[in-house]
Amino acid sequence: MISMLENVEVRMKRMIEELDDPYVNGLFENLPRGKRLRAKLILRIAGENERAAELAAIVEMIHAASLLHDDVIDDAPLRRGVVSVNASEGSKQAVMLGDVLYARGFEALTSFEEDIAKKVSHAVTLLSIGEMMDVRMSKSFNADIERYFRMIYQKTAALIEATASAAAMLAKKDEKIYGLYGKNLGIAFQIIDDILDITQSSEQLGKPAMHDFEEGKTTLPYIYLYESLDDEARERLVSMHGKKLADEQKEWIRGMMEVTAAVQKAYLYAKELGEEAIALMEGENEEGLAQIVEAMIEREF
Amino acid sequence: MISMLENVEVRMKRMIEELDDPYVNGLFENLPRGKRLRAKLILRIAGENERAAELAAIVEMIHAASLLHDDVIDDAPLRRGVVSVNASEGSKQAVMLGDVLYARGFEALTSFEEDIAKKVSHAVTLLSIGEMMDVRMSKSFNADIERYFRMIYQKTAALIEATASAAAMLAKKDEKIYGLYGKNLGIAFQIIDDILDITQSSEQLGKPAMHDFEEGKTTLPYIYLYESLDDEARERLVSMHGKKLADEQKEWIRGMMEVTAAVQKAYLYAKELGEEAIALMEGENEEGLAQIVEAMIEREF
Repeated sequence: MISMLENVEVRMKRMIEELDDPYVNGLFENLPRGKRLRAKLILRIAGENERAAELAAIVEMIHAASLLHDDVIDDAPLRRGVVSVNASEGSKQAVMLGDVLYARGFEALTSFEEDIAKKVSHAVTLLSIGEMMDVRMSKSFNADIERYFRMIYQKTAALIEATASAAAMLAKKDEKIYGLYGKNLGIAFQIIDDILDITQSSEQLGKPAMHDFEEGKTTLPYIYLYESLDDEARERLVSMHGKKLADEQKEWIRGMMEVTAAVQKAYLYAKELGEEAIALMEGENEEGLAQIVEAMIEREF
Repeated sequence: MISMLENVEVRMKRMIEELDDPYVNGLFENLPRGKRLRAKLILRIAGENERAAELAAIVEMIHAASLLHDDVIDDAPLRRGVVSVNASEGSKQAVMLGDVLYARGFEALTSFEEDIAKKVSHAVTLLSIGEMMDVRMSKSFNADIERYFRMIYQKTAALIEATASAAAMLAKKDEKIYGLYGKNLGIAFQIIDDILDITQSSEQLGKPAMHDFEEGKTTLPYIYLYESLDDEARERLVSMHGKKLADEQKEWIRGMMEVTAAVQKAYLYAKELGEEAIALMEGENEEGLAQIVEAMIEREF
């Protein structure tokens, strides 16, 4: 697996080097590499072969593009503890570097079967619509849990679902089962991410803690918290939405999350989705894929 | 041709309606439609048939995406006299709407032969690199004419070249000849656009006049002007670069352009490229394609 993941890195590097633009190349080289979750999924599902490595490089390229635009949207100063491209080069260059990576990914995707290419590119459409929804929803406190789930499905889970399902197509496995596995994994992943924003320190996160709510994002723990509060406390919570939080406000929110078990409830929901995904993979004798879910659920709390 | 262009519009509309997102749909409906130059080229080259109309819808979708990101890059308040999406909805939504249109275009492109899909998607990579180059070059006065040509080839001509060449592939015509035609047309088109920014009024342009130089863009007439000036006047020109221009500064630049015939020289260069393109098409008995170049060169001065 390790050498095959290295193969994926080499392919990504080459895809960009071929463009022969030193500036683009330099920016790409400095992007933090991340966990390469999507590449690992593809190699596990479709096997450690050249086509799987190529698809993995493409999906990671597309994912990297989406993160560049995501950081522009969020005005994020950091990505994995490293200064973001929008912060160092300006948001214009970050938008365009994202476009370069997207187009490069799509270009390489044309060498795949139509149904695989279509699945992946459709997920990028959903991802972008999900990001737009995220921006719109940030303008006011959102207590609508269905709306939150629809948004995170599109923003995060759709590409992971498509990744797993495209890899299954490549390996002539059941795309529906693997797609559902990816969907559950993706939604659980986003919920855990939203929880970590509340429970971890800025140092652990590599970005400011409790930034989501300051940015206007009413993530699942906040929705559960809202549901458990009385009118007065609800009002207080809503009044803090979308603003810079003072330390005592952060403490109040964390305390209330503790009392109402809102974080715990969100965690249990993610865990349930994860267990469904694990059961699906156990049915397919996919121990490695089941373990990926377990490791994700057990991330630092 | 008119009914077939209407067919292209209907396809574009449907591509977005299928996403079933009222907000995205509303924004898309309000985008100014433009000249649909790329669609016209495809229908002329590949004939008025369903596959050509589909390819035309895809390329126009991709072009619309690039304009959304271009307006973000330029902080443009208007596009064709209409308030731009970045101005009305914020640059975040404009970036993401662009991503939706790109992904939708790429998704539909997967139904085409690999070489056609590859050609178009590679052009998008070049286009984005060209935009990055444009942003970087705007930071200082650029007197390097080769660098300017390289940038406008990537930013503007590469997609028109790919459009013409992909349409030729679809019609089993000579992709090299049609590609060269598209490249010349694209470069000439950008030069004329750069000239109009200087010679037309804000009302005619539907956006502020002489905005390019204020934005830091040293377009071809400015490069020719610089080449013709003495040291003192050069210094004066360079000192105005990238700043808001007072009316008397605009008058001085326009006067100097007149005296040195810098605009005229840029126009002749574009005309020469256009004439090469016309000759290529006359050799292929493509009267309609030759006329497209003529009409473009004769745009309002």
